[in-house]
Amino acid sequence: MKFTCNSTDFVEALSTATHALPVRTTVQILEYVMLETDENDDLRITCSDGTLTMITKCSVSVQEGGSCLLPGRLLAEISRKLPIGDMTFDTTNNTSAVIKCMGSRTSIAYRPSSLYPRPTEMTDVTAEQEIELPQALLKDMILKTSFAIAVDEERPILTGCLLESAGGEARMVALDGFRMAIRMQRVSPDDQLYAVIPGKALQEIARLLSDDEERMITIRVAGGHMYTIVDSTQVITVLKEGKYINYRMIIPAEWKTQADVDAGLLSDCVERASLMAREGKNNLVKLDIGNGMIVITSNSEIGDVHEEVEADIEGEGLKIAFNVKYLSDALKSIDGKRIRMWFNTSVTPCVIVPADSDEFTHMILPVRMQG
Amino acid sequence: MKFTCNSTDFVEALSTATHALPVRTTVQILEYVMLETDENDDLRITCSDGTLTMITKCSVSVQEGGSCLLPGRLLAEISRKLPIGDMTFDTTNNTSAVIKCMGSRTSIAYRPSSLYPRPTEMTDVTAEQEIELPQALLKDMILKTSFAIAVDEERPILTGCLLESAGGEARMVALDGFRMAIRMQRVSPDDQLYAVIPGKALQEIARLLSDDEERMITIRVAGGHMYTIVDSTQVITVLKEGKYINYRMIIPAEWKTQADVDAGLLSDCVERASLMAREGKNNLVKLDIGNGMIVITSNSEIGDVHEEVEADIEGEGLKIAFNVKYLSDALKSIDGKRIRMWFNTSVTPCVIVPADSDEFTHMILPVRMQG
Repeated sequence: MKFTCNSTDFVEALSTATHALPVRTTVQILEYVMLETDENDDLRITCSDGTLTMITKCSVSVQEGGSCLLPGRLLAEISRKLPIGDMTFDTTNNTSAVIKCMGSRTSIAYRPSSLYPRPTEMTDVTAEQEIELPQALLKDMILKTSFAIAVDEERPILTGCLLESAGGEARMVALDGFRMAIRMQRVSPDDQLYAVIPGKALQEIARLLSDDEERMITIRVAGGHMYTIVDSTQVITVLKEGKYINYRMIIPAEWKTQADVDAGLLSDCVERASLMAREGKNNLVKLDIGNGMIVITSNSEIGDVHEEVEADIEGEGLKIAFNVKYLSDALKSIDGKRIRMWFNTSVTPCVIVPADSDEFTHMILPVRMQG
Repeated sequence: MKFTCNSTDFVEALSTATHALPVRTTVQILEYVMLETDENDDLRITCSDGTLTMITKCSVSVQEGGSCLLPGRLLAEISRKLPIGDMTFDTTNNTSAVIKCMGSRTSIAYRPSSLYPRPTEMTDVTAEQEIELPQALLKDMILKTSFAIAVDEERPILTGCLLESAGGEARMVALDGFRMAIRMQRVSPDDQLYAVIPGKALQEIARLLSDDEERMITIRVAGGHMYTIVDSTQVITVLKEGKYINYRMIIPAEWKTQADVDAGLLSDCVERASLMAREGKNNLVKLDIGNGMIVITSNSEIGDVHEEVEADIEGEGLKIAFNVKYLSDALKSIDGKRIRMWFNTSVTPCVIVPADSDEFTHMILPVRMQG
């Protein structure tokens, strides 16, 4: 294969696709990136970690069609340092791919593309389920929930987010056994989807998505895979198998204490308390709710932090303790809106919703206090 | 002690001084920061790692003079997260220092300042040697040489930079046995100094220095210590003991090959070659000098990089190999000026100077090539 292009375009496409390179793998061929020319004289760059596959197109001028595999990270790093200008990519002379750009010439031994596991692509499959969403909405759904995805692999399904669309509501749900984050948006009642998407894929999709409300994205599910295309990049991922937890069941239906508070102010207080909590090694932050305010405290052997923030309280007063990370993650995702917090007892979950909408729901399990 | 101030001023002064906190120490009291009020109603914040001491002043309003020790990193982290506004610092009520700022109250157990090793300060000593330099010049001297300071402690004197002022020339010199960097500037012939300053102190001084040519800085040496004041911060460091290497002796007096080349272009070529050199694990980059150009090559099992850059060559052609890091460090410090490279043989040092001045001298030992 032989093509010419602008080195900047090549570097940009390559750096997008190489996000799917595996960090560690036992399948050595996945450390390679597949370059191939297509019928439209575009270059297609494919990387995969075995679960997530990304294929990015790059506009080039093809002199001779073909394909090859090159070591992914090395190619990406060398390309990033190329001069800016016209570059030539050529595998026709020998067993090395030769990249020439201005006075620079790099040769890298390539391998035949037949060794690479070729992915099934979006155009190859018939949609079993499909929805279309604004890019900005999907990005927000991912950013507002994915922090609550489980880190450990004990229950594999919890290392993904549930994307569910039914009855005119699209929901993204993440939970790890200690906290849960839900982002909801009203959509067309025709949009039907139920898929548990791995966290890594969501992170890469969020990176590609624009904040533009006008631009749409199609999510297609078929044969246990999810397919989507953002601009010139196709993202394909294996879905998590099995049924997600019935998350509606675990949200308390009633409350005994309600506190309306500014999420930004509360978040600042929790951040300061977290430093002392970390010194104390228990990572505990305590909330004392009542008398028109929430008092946030944390302590350790060497001192304590005491913070007060005004709140509109209804119902009984309550003292409750949380792992500071879970409270902090939830509050940071809320963008400083006014929130409503619901409590029952000091050992049952706290629910956090917006004071004026139903856009999100956070739920956090408290830590049982001694004495 | 009790004072009020703006939390922003306190945070800024504290974050400057805490740069001198030790990373690891067996002297537990050095993990504390000393706060004390002085006769001018300023707050003085002192941190020390035993070798480097930094004392920063902060404008406060003192209600009750005094001093105390607080855990350095914890205080810095909590302070950084304080609301912006008026804060009160108070140790008068109990065994804890209480910091109040808006709705936030933090208590931290303090220790008496008598436990802290009190440093000898600049005003306490009579100068044995002293010079005054523009801040921008000293900053440039540090940044252009300190990368060549030895990392390992085998020869302790090489973990500092020599600052030498004599005969109307000030020089900063760093060398590690494989390469050397010298930055020279003509100064008043009256300025006499010879001091080997530890790298850590130079790094902290460079951080404080302004780029303003008009602002001056005084370097005072007395009793094996160096003292200087930049704005509201005093920096004190123990000097390296002993005589620095006679660096003039090791610079070759003659050359057989001279190459004038653009440092920026050559640096870009070396950066690209370095990636392939790293793959090859030998970290070698080869220079082939002759025929009006320098050809830069590196290779590994999986490929090679070949770069060409135009140069004005005088004398014999030459092939020579370098550890790519040493060549890269030197070229990166040169800001893309036109440089003159001098060579004798493939096993003797290469000298790099500016094409049109004597501001700096770099010297790099080559790597002996096989065959």
